[in-house]
Amino acid sequence: MKRHLISAADLTRDDALLVLDTAEELAQVADRSIKKLPTLRGRTVVNLFFEDSTRTRISFEAAAKRLSADVINFSAKGSSVSKGESLKDTALTLEAMGADGVVIRHNASGAPHRLAGWVRGSVVNAGDGTHEHPTQALLDAFTMRRRLGDLSGRKVTIVGDVLHSRVARSNVLLLATLGAEVTVVAPPTLLPVAMGDWPCEVSYDLDAVLPKSDAIMMLRVQQERMNAAYFPTVREYSRRYGLDAPRMAQLPEHAIVMHPGPMNRGVEIAAEVADSPRSTIVEQVANGVSVRMAVLYLLLGGSESAIGTPGAGE
Amino acid sequence: MKRHLISAADLTRDDALLVLDTAEELAQVADRSIKKLPTLRGRTVVNLFFEDSTRTRISFEAAAKRLSADVINFSAKGSSVSKGESLKDTALTLEAMGADGVVIRHNASGAPHRLAGWVRGSVVNAGDGTHEHPTQALLDAFTMRRRLGDLSGRKVTIVGDVLHSRVARSNVLLLATLGAEVTVVAPPTLLPVAMGDWPCEVSYDLDAVLPKSDAIMMLRVQQERMNAAYFPTVREYSRRYGLDAPRMAQLPEHAIVMHPGPMNRGVEIAAEVADSPRSTIVEQVANGVSVRMAVLYLLLGGSESAIGTPGAGE
Amino acid sequence: MKRHLISAADLTRDDALLVLDTAEELAQVADRSIKKLPTLRGRTVVNLFFEDSTRTRISFEAAAKRLSADVINFSAKGSSVSKGESLKDTALTLEAMGADGVVIRHNASGAPHRLAGWVRGSVVNAGDGTHEHPTQALLDAFTMRRRLGDLSGRKVTIVGDVLHSRVARSNVLLLATLGAEVTVVAPPTLLPVAMGDWPCEVSYDLDAVLPKSDAIMMLRVQQERMNAAYFPTVREYSRRYGLDAPRMAQLPEHAIVMHPGPMNRGVEIAAEVADSPRSTIVEQVANGVSVRMAVLYLLLGGSESAIGTPGAGE
Repeated sequence: MKRHLISAADLTRDDALLVLDTAEELAQVADRSIKKLPTLRGRTVVNLFFEDSTRTRISFEAAAKRLSADVINFSAKGSSVSKGESLKDTALTLEAMGADGVVIRHNASGAPHRLAGWVRGSVVNAGDGTHEHPTQALLDAFTMRRRLGDLSGRKVTIVGDVLHSRVARSNVLLLATLGAEVTVVAPPTLLPVAMGDWPCEVSYDLDAVLPKSDAIMMLRVQQERMNAAYFPTVREYSRRYGLDAPRMAQLPEHAIVMHPGPMNRGVEIAAEVADSPRSTIVEQVANGVSVRMAVLYLLLGGSESAIGTPGAGE
Repeated sequence: MKRHLISAADLTRDDALLVLDTAEELAQVADRSIKKLPTLRGRTVVNLFFEDSTRTRISFEAAAKRLSADVINFSAKGSSVSKGESLKDTALTLEAMGADGVVIRHNASGAPHRLAGWVRGSVVNAGDGTHEHPTQALLDAFTMRRRLGDLSGRKVTIVGDVLHSRVARSNVLLLATLGAEVTVVAPPTLLPVAMGDWPCEVSYDLDAVLPKSDAIMMLRVQQERMNAAYFPTVREYSRRYGLDAPRMAQLPEHAIVMHPGPMNRGVEIAAEVADSPRSTIVEQVANGVSVRMAVLYLLLGGSESAIGTPGAGE
Repeated sequence: MKRHLISAADLTRDDALLVLDTAEELAQVADRSIKKLPTLRGRTVVNLFFEDSTRTRISFEAAAKRLSADVINFSAKGSSVSKGESLKDTALTLEAMGADGVVIRHNASGAPHRLAGWVRGSVVNAGDGTHEHPTQALLDAFTMRRRLGDLSGRKVTIVGDVLHSRVARSNVLLLATLGAEVTVVAPPTLLPVAMGDWPCEVSYDLDAVLPKSDAIMMLRVQQERMNAAYFPTVREYSRRYGLDAPRMAQLPEHAIVMHPGPMNRGVEIAAEVADSPRSTIVEQVANGVSVRMAVLYLLLGGSESAIGTPGAGE
């Protein structure tokens, strides 16, 4: 495995399976009520967030703390960054303070890649612009594998604003690596122009795709993009691309419904769908902690066992 | 004891005494310089604050950390909450991330109650709207008991803006449970209309009540409420309902002066009163940590001993 | 050593050397990959920041956590401080909550001194107004000593806005204590009027001083002060007082270039100077953690060994 996790494309099939298997091992330890492992004691993880994202920050913070790492939260607001310090100087500063890992969220696509060029520690991309969000893709794959088994040949449908979605991009890349067959469904205005480069099918007709989907992933609607160039109205979007109960009924019986959160209930997903037993939305959040523990362990943990010797020295 | 602590009314007399006795035990351990106990190691406490309240947040954070819990601070500002996520989805997210306890502060009365309906972990109300602040009442009772002994038959006077005070409401309920006799003193405009339901006496005359008070609790004045419908001016309020040195001299010799903080020195309480030996204001803050340790331990700690085996495995 | 660290003038020569030697010991332990020491387990350090300063806050936070202290961050924004609570009441509150040490950053010169009069715990000044920043001076001295050896008789030049610089003041005081010979270089408008009291030389001619400097310390330009009463323009400032490559070439071969950060690359320091092997800027950040560990240990750690028994009980 590489030293950093910037893109889902950084992961070979073996890498991805190693993360998923390690996460499974960690999740099972947690199920046995052993919540804290000594694996990363003495390591420091910095959460470097240039965009607010409480959910993602907390998920990484919980993951690092369960591995006994020290966590330092750095919000760019009101920091020397806002006094004009360059990303490079911020990076060198954090490294000099002893950061073994930097989890970065940035509004600019490519910022984590640049950061990785400047520091010796490991960089984990926690979402950069409209580019990638690889740990989201890993937790989604983990969730699908737990519900559906091996992903080879599984049909996954991703619905919504693919154009601006780092979640969609990372998922398409990782799912292709894992052998799943992905279809993205979106209005033409919300698809990238170079869609041909993506390893997936494209459809504009949600209802046609539903009956052959093993998993359907609804993307969050950025409501400020509706009524603008991209789509006439939220209501119209919801009618054509939202998942309501009648649409959910068209899915095969075993199919699952996913959403990266936070949801707009009643827009891209109906409340009764979000709360149905097919929905994996809460599981995705729980799995996010296990997957991020696995990533931090594999990048920072060196040669030690992922689960250490639980309880020893605690 | 119930699984949550939402209202002082949730506590039976035995529950309340158990919290106070446990807090006493924890305070004595701390006095012996054993500041950190392993009791909640591996548990995660989330401070979910929809209102700024640094004092209360820090008190809970210190309490949880002294019990070796991991603490995650979640300020609703700039979070997905501000992107329109519902309280329910926030709750489910925190629980999925492994929160064993959620300490919630919310501007809406009733929010902690709703939260408790959605999560398996324990919910502690750290102040909701004008409704309740039960750990404040517990730390006040703890402070009175340390200074005055058993509270049965003790006369406690609460002075100020009772209408908007969650501190007053929780104190009245808890003190009644513990057998104290409470009188609230306030201008009529700053009393609830349904005051008859409260288990306490009402007076408009502070000077008449002082000589028979064992403890007097001054509530914080929200200065923006003065000069409005509620009371003519801050100065006039201070003259009629503030506690200055001459008024303090009317108290029995053993009586104590309390304030939940932060104080408006010179408004509801004179500086020389706040700093007198009768004042328990700093003790209340210290006791707050012990009481919150006791609450977190009793709600999250399962069957283990409150003080664990100090030093073991640390 | 005194109980607090408010000013570099609080430190005798022996005190200062004790801090530097302890920091050296701690840095060497960290170099052996033992990053976490149990020395301050059970102690609580509060970062009380009335001004944003992410760099300094993180440095103290990392230092305290490496010594296993619990750290509580208190940002005055949105706290009861903004509701009008006095610094004294804030101080008493923090102490009552069990703060063994308070690291304070305040926009008012003298605030840490007043704080120290109210609390029993140790106060560390992390920068107060235009007054002092003693741990910055200590980390600078530590950096010089590592690069240049004993500081007696060493020539240190400090360049820039000395008038408003707590970094300059603390450095001048500490370097004098340690026997170095300091020259400050600044435009006359950016020097204090009572410069005669400072134990240093003054020069207005950077080029004349360069060839006889063992270390040159560039101060951060507050760009909003340029174009105002203090100096015509940023560009003009840069031309006369900035350190570019031709000026750096006038330094003796062994001389080092320092900056407290964050830098304005291209203003007070050219990018190629900042990134040159003579630059100690990144080392200063790393050394800051070691020095702050030493200060916290010496103030809070009592009679235990600074490096404890690494690994024991962890």
